[in-house]
Amino acid sequence: MTQATVVKPVEETPQTSKLCIILSKGTLDMAYPAFMLANAAAAMGYEVHIFFTFWGMNVIDKRKIDNLKVSSVGNPALPMPNLLGALPGMTAMVTRMLKNKMAKQRVPTIRELIKTAKEAGVKLHACSTTMDVMGLKKEDFIPEVDDIVGAASFIQMSEGGQVIFI
Amino acid sequence: MTQATVVKPVEETPQTSKLCIILSKGTLDMAYPAFMLANAAAAMGYEVHIFFTFWGMNVIDKRKIDNLKVSSVGNPALPMPNLLGALPGMTAMVTRMLKNKMAKQRVPTIRELIKTAKEAGVKLHACSTTMDVMGLKKEDFIPEVDDIVGAASFIQMSEGGQVIFI
Amino acid sequence: MTQATVVKPVEETPQTSKLCIILSKGTLDMAYPAFMLANAAAAMGYEVHIFFTFWGMNVIDKRKIDNLKVSSVGNPALPMPNLLGALPGMTAMVTRMLKNKMAKQRVPTIRELIKTAKEAGVKLHACSTTMDVMGLKKEDFIPEVDDIVGAASFIQMSEGGQVIFI
Repeated sequence: MTQATVVKPVEETPQTSKLCIILSKGTLDMAYPAFMLANAAAAMGYEVHIFFTFWGMNVIDKRKIDNLKVSSVGNPALPMPNLLGALPGMTAMVTRMLKNKMAKQRVPTIRELIKTAKEAGVKLHACSTTMDVMGLKKEDFIPEVDDIVGAASFIQMSEGGQVIFI
Repeated sequence: MTQATVVKPVEETPQTSKLCIILSKGTLDMAYPAFMLANAAAAMGYEVHIFFTFWGMNVIDKRKIDNLKVSSVGNPALPMPNLLGALPGMTAMVTRMLKNKMAKQRVPTIRELIKTAKEAGVKLHACSTTMDVMGLKKEDFIPEVDDIVGAASFIQMSEGGQVIFI
Repeated sequence: MTQATVVKPVEETPQTSKLCIILSKGTLDMAYPAFMLANAAAAMGYEVHIFFTFWGMNVIDKRKIDNLKVSSVGNPALPMPNLLGALPGMTAMVTRMLKNKMAKQRVPTIRELIKTAKEAGVKLHACSTTMDVMGLKKEDFIPEVDDIVGAASFIQMSEGGQVIFI
């Protein structure tokens, strides 16, 4: 009676957690949550991907990344009437205010957050369809962008992970 | 010694992946990501649901679906001062520009994306609470809408799947 | 031949489902989906967390919670030209209209939804970084807020759950 019954143990799924962020907005106030979450997750050992699409392209466009703005119009969170918010210069003023407050609290800039993200292994993907529609080229991007992919590739890489749409 | 020890193999979880999208925005630039993601996932064998709520109702409202707009105000991604963006006609112009660019790149229209979605088995659900609040009736919707459900039903159908809020 | 081969059954993962909502917007039309989903999930036995960040802070700020607004500008879903939407008073009017419609349909107020949420065990977390940047203090919040946490803590508590970014 020497039959060795090999019972394959239930695997403990030691696989890494995965966070996949779709960034569809091109404003400073939405770029921040994307990278804050990405970097926090990466620091905890997550595999992290950010897929830039639509207005989110601004954040990886080297001609725009340093001039991301906060919207002053249509954001009722700001204590000013809409007409005032619509005056030229108001968006710039609100953006400057937020940037100053962040600098005072030593919150890193988006450039710095991207640097940290890359060091932690976060992958940055540009949406190929958006590039076609907006006439963007690979050379328009910051060098930190890893590759250019379509929605199908993104779905594939997000399989089994958490997905956040910003 | 003929005992056959039947060891049930650890199941390979052959269950389908599931993607559930909540579309709460009624603009062209947010309807696109919803259907691009839905259709890419459906093409890969995912079970896909889209739950239309709040402004997202526009996308299934047969009186509005062909006139979805891109916001020109409060979108600092666009290279124009807010006051200019607030001039009547600017939203229409920006929308026309985007539609033209998309047509040139042979990006399907929202109508076409919905057709593809349905053929691939994507389910479209209208939010019952929003219908009550906005005074919408079933007859106001495009025929592709599958049913009218509440938040509880949506939570139930999304169980175990990925959820994206747009 | 009495060997008892103990085959450990594949566990049925009886763990609770978990829903983690990040609320980054400070408008009435986005606070509603957050609490409607949170409360529906909690009623079905989910563990539910809401993490308030950026403009979402308005929703737990006791000086602002009763005056959350719907944006009339930059929301092409509303049937009015942008310039009209930019006139002072329009945001207030649109907000009043929506509130009236909701009251008629007996949709609970945000205050009421928060009360229900808390009774159902939903946890409310304030983002520490946003507090620093915006100069907010614990005393500025409604008492229903459970604690103040950073992005890392949120990632940790969302592990294995569904994450929704609003």
